[in-house]
Parts: sequence; C-alpha cells; structure tokens
Amino acid sequence: MPSYSERLIARVGQLNTPALVGLDPRWEQLPAEVKEAAQSAGGSDAAIMARGFESFCCEIVDIVAPLVPAVKPQVAFFEQLGPAGFTALARVISHARAAGLVVIADAKRGDIGSTATAYADAWLAGEDPEAAPFGADALTVNAYLGDDTLQPFVEKAVSNSAGLYILVRTSNPGAATFQDRSSKGQKLFETVADVVQQLNSNHWPDDDYGSIGAVVGATWPEELKSLRRRMPNTPFLVPGYGSQGGTAADVAGAFDPNGHGALVNSSRGINFAFQKKEYAEQFGPAGWRNAIEAATRQMIADLRKHVPATP
Amino acid sequence: MPSYSERLIARVGQLNTPALVGLDPRWEQLPAEVKEAAQSAGGSDAAIMARGFESFCCEIVDIVAPLVPAVKPQVAFFEQLGPAGFTALARVISHARAAGLVVIADAKRGDIGSTATAYADAWLAGEDPEAAPFGADALTVNAYLGDDTLQPFVEKAVSNSAGLYILVRTSNPGAATFQDRSSKGQKLFETVADVVQQLNSNHWPDDDYGSIGAVVGATWPEELKSLRRRMPNTPFLVPGYGSQGGTAADVAGAFDPNGHGALVNSSRGINFAFQKKEYAEQFGPAGWRNAIEAATRQMIADLRKHVPATP
Repeated sequence: MPSYSERLIARVGQLNTPALVGLDPRWEQLPAEVKEAAQSAGGSDAAIMARGFESFCCEIVDIVAPLVPAVKPQVAFFEQLGPAGFTALARVISHARAAGLVVIADAKRGDIGSTATAYADAWLAGEDPEAAPFGADALTVNAYLGDDTLQPFVEKAVSNSAGLYILVRTSNPGAATFQDRSSKGQKLFETVADVVQQLNSNHWPDDDYGSIGAVVGATWPEELKSLRRRMPNTPFLVPGYGSQGGTAADVAGAFDPNGHGALVNSSRGINFAFQKKEYAEQFGPAGWRNAIEAATRQMIADLRKHVPATP
Repeated sequence: MPSYSERLIARVGQLNTPALVGLDPRWEQLPAEVKEAAQSAGGSDAAIMARGFESFCCEIVDIVAPLVPAVKPQVAFFEQLGPAGFTALARVISHARAAGLVVIADAKRGDIGSTATAYADAWLAGEDPEAAPFGADALTVNAYLGDDTLQPFVEKAVSNSAGLYILVRTSNPGAATFQDRSSKGQKLFETVADVVQQLNSNHWPDDDYGSIGAVVGATWPEELKSLRRRMPNTPFLVPGYGSQGGTAADVAGAFDPNGHGALVNSSRGINFAFQKKEYAEQFGPAGWRNAIEAATRQMIADLRKHVPATP
C-alpha cells in the first residue's frame, strides 16, 4: 500500500503544482445564485446553509480537481451549522475523493489516549475513503497536550496509509506567544518539529518524505526555511498565502530542489475570487465559477515562478 | 445576565459538590440491554451506535441531574460516529440542559481569527441553550496557536454568558513534554495560566471568578496547588480523578476555603461503574443504573472528605 506521502507526491508530480485549495464556506459570501437555490428547497436555517455549503464546495471541487492535487476543508465552518453541517462536510469530502483529490481535513484535533484514537477513527480514512465516517486522507493535529498524545494518530496514519499535519509554527500574528518560547536556545516550535521529524525517520526510514507533516505559516519565511532544513523528511502544509499576506516568494523555502516537500494553501482568495475587483469586472456576478478557476490558475502560475518544477 | 461562573457557582452551592460527570460513551462497553435496544431499531452501524450513545448518555443525565451540578460530554466519541454521532450529541446536550445541568463540551477546539469564531458559534450557547447548534454552557479550548486566537472565544463567552476552559496542564503522562518548557524560570503552562488569569481580571474585575477557566489534571497535585495561587480568579476543570489515578486528596488544592474554584471530573469510573467488581456483585448486570448512581454518590462522598463545604 503506498503511503500518504507517496500518493500525494504522485499527484503533485502529475499536475506539477503544490497548490492546495482550502474550502472555507461562509454563508454571507456565497454567490447569490447558490444562496437562492439553497433557500428555495426550504427547511431550517441550518439545513439551508448546509445545502448551500455543500453545493458551493462541490462546485469548487469540480472546478479545481483537474488543476490541483488536494483540497483542505475547514471543519469549523461546517461545525458552526451543527449536525447538518457535518452531513454536508462528509458529502463534500466524499465528492472530492471521487474526483481524485487528496483531502486534508483541517480540524486541528488533539486529545489524550483513547480519546485521540476516537478522533483518528473519525477522520483518518487514508487510502480507502470508506474507512472512516469523514473520509479524509489527512488531518491537522494540535500537539500541545504532549508527544504521547500523537501516538494514536500516528498508529492510524500507518495502518490506513493516512497523513497528519501537526501544528508547528502557525500563520497568525500571535503565533510567537507560546510557540517561540525559548529554552536552552531552542524554541518550542523547534522541539515540536524535532518530534515530528523523528516520527518520520522512525516510521518511513527509507522514504524521502514520511506521512507526518508540519503546519508552518507562509507569513514566516525565515522560520519556513530553517524548518525545511531541520525537518528534511517532513511534508509541510503552508497556510497564510494570499489573503493572509504570504507570497509565492515567501513560500519558496519550503520546497526541495524537485519541487516537493510542501503544499501551499489558499482559501478565501480562491473561494471568493468573484468578489475581487479584477475578477468581478472580468466575469460579472454570474461568472463566479470562472473567477474561481482563474484565481486557481493564477496561484499555480505564481507558485511556478518560485517553486522548482517537479521532475 | 448572570455570568457562566455565577450560574455554575449557584448550582455547585445548591448541591454542595464540585463533582462533574463525564459522558464518554464507548460502544463495546455499553450495557447489553442498551446495545440490544439500539440494534433492534435497525439502520447503519453508525445509526445504531449513535442511538445507543444517545440513550445511554440521556439515562446517565437523568440519574446524575439531582446529584451533580454539571456534565462533560467528550465530543470525540460522538465525532467518531460521523454526522449521526453529532445528531446524538446535540440531543444529549439539550436533554442535559433541560434537566438543569451545566454542560461543558469537551472538544479541545482552537483555530485562528474567523475560524475560531466559527467554533465559538458552534458550541458556546451559554445561558440560552438555543443560542448555538450544540447548546453547551462552556467549551474546552487549546491555546497553542497563540493568545490572539483566544479572543473570538472570549468575546462569545462574554456576549452569551458562556464559559471556556483553556488547556493549561493536562492529565496525561506526557503533559510535561511541551507544557513544562521553561524559559527564564517560567514554564509554558504558567505563561498560559497568566494569560487566562489576566482575561478573567480584565473581563470580570469585580467577581470572585471569571468565566475563562483552566484545565489542570488531578494527576499533578503540586501544579494544581501552585496554579490555584497563580490564578486566583480562574475556575478549574480537573480531569484525571478516578480511572486516571487522581484522588480526592490530590484535588483538594484546587479549591478555595468556600469549596469553590474547581469542578472535578470522573468519566469512565461512573459511566462504566457496573463493570467494576464491587458494583457488579452488588447490583448484577441489569443494575447498571444503580451502579452509576452509587459510583456518583461515592465520588461526592470522597470529595466531601477533602473539599471544604460550600457556605
């Protein structure tokens, strides 16, 4: 069974891009026609919004599946709608897997012992999308509770050929408050990084990349470069490109000379591209699909200027 | 509108106990009659298990509502069942609120900016159980991402009279790996503790306790005592009592002289009391409800030996 990283690398190579499209549905920003269609079928507010989220995200999936290797649904926006949101999310994930996309569930889960196992069971379907109720290839995880709490997630990643992305250095302005605490010349996020790198060399000693990734924000280009050196076998998930201010030049340091080693995420910049002046003028309000496609192609082109081509 | 802490303190005083009952349903451990009833109604595996979780947890709620102030559903066990699990969880929370219990959703969520707001919207109903799809009074939160990421949760706690419990020093054996990183003589969990205490003195300057709590494990009695001094206006949620090894004497340091300042949680020790030799012999397999009640009363009695009575 190919590992998560092997599956991901194959798909990145096929499309020659590390672009990752985030799925961040927000009701007030959905295209008018999506909202109207969702409303016309009636039901509770949550049911209407969940229907809108599902159809919008499935349309994005159809647009980007021929262009990018992976999508990253942000679980919080579905969770906000309660049970109806989770039903929509399960369908969006399933639709994305059927379209051949790698799916990274951005849930930032984390807990101890058998509770962590329950989260892993919920999300880490891995190679077989039917192997978990939310059929993701990979999951984002918060390690504050301790290195022992990663073990249940790692076991599931190994058994199901799934992936993890552990929060190392996040993209928000306050990331440094706790993550940069320095002890004997080493920052906390570097200690977390060393734990993650070690898991990869323990479990995938013969591979270029293991399947336990690291989340490292595009907003911190220096940390990105130094972490690339520190974690040579760790795949990165890089948020913060686009709306949060990270540029293609900022993320270049996350890659190896073969154009592997990272996925770069854009969410709002692509999902709501039709609201940007440039695309709104070009395509008009009915052209939201074209705007999403154009913004995706633009991101791919921008990244190609700074990221080495895959062999 | 009374704050979360005021509502909690009133209920703790009424029942004169800080005992918190965790709701941790696990299919393989449910009483045989609960499993059979869930199976007899048919449906998918997830639907059957969700039905079992809902009826088991609602029965626990009915048993403990006259005895304890609060319950803590562990979200991971419901999440493990996919959307059907979340439907069951929403109903369990609603049932517990209707029974007068304070409900703490143990979800350990955390994310940045508007994503954190979405999590707050999902869970922090606060005083009005209808104000969120999962109608909890309070939510557990992971602050690794940074102090700025707490702000959206705090705003919702203030506006809805809801509570938070930030992970400070967790109960697992590996808690020290990251949480104890020392810098200039101060450990990371102490820095997190100071941020939390400051939030309480900023937002509830005139109250004995604010509504931003701290999770501190019963398995670390020394840290519990020193954190009580360090965070005088912060309510604690203390996991790790019972099955994880913490005793009533271990948690005594979490309380003020009026018996306030902490809730002590037991999950497995109460949920599955009927599997313990002492209760199994006394009540037999059909007496699982009696075992749950007896174990709850036993915990309350144990705590009374070490925790000051409320005025």
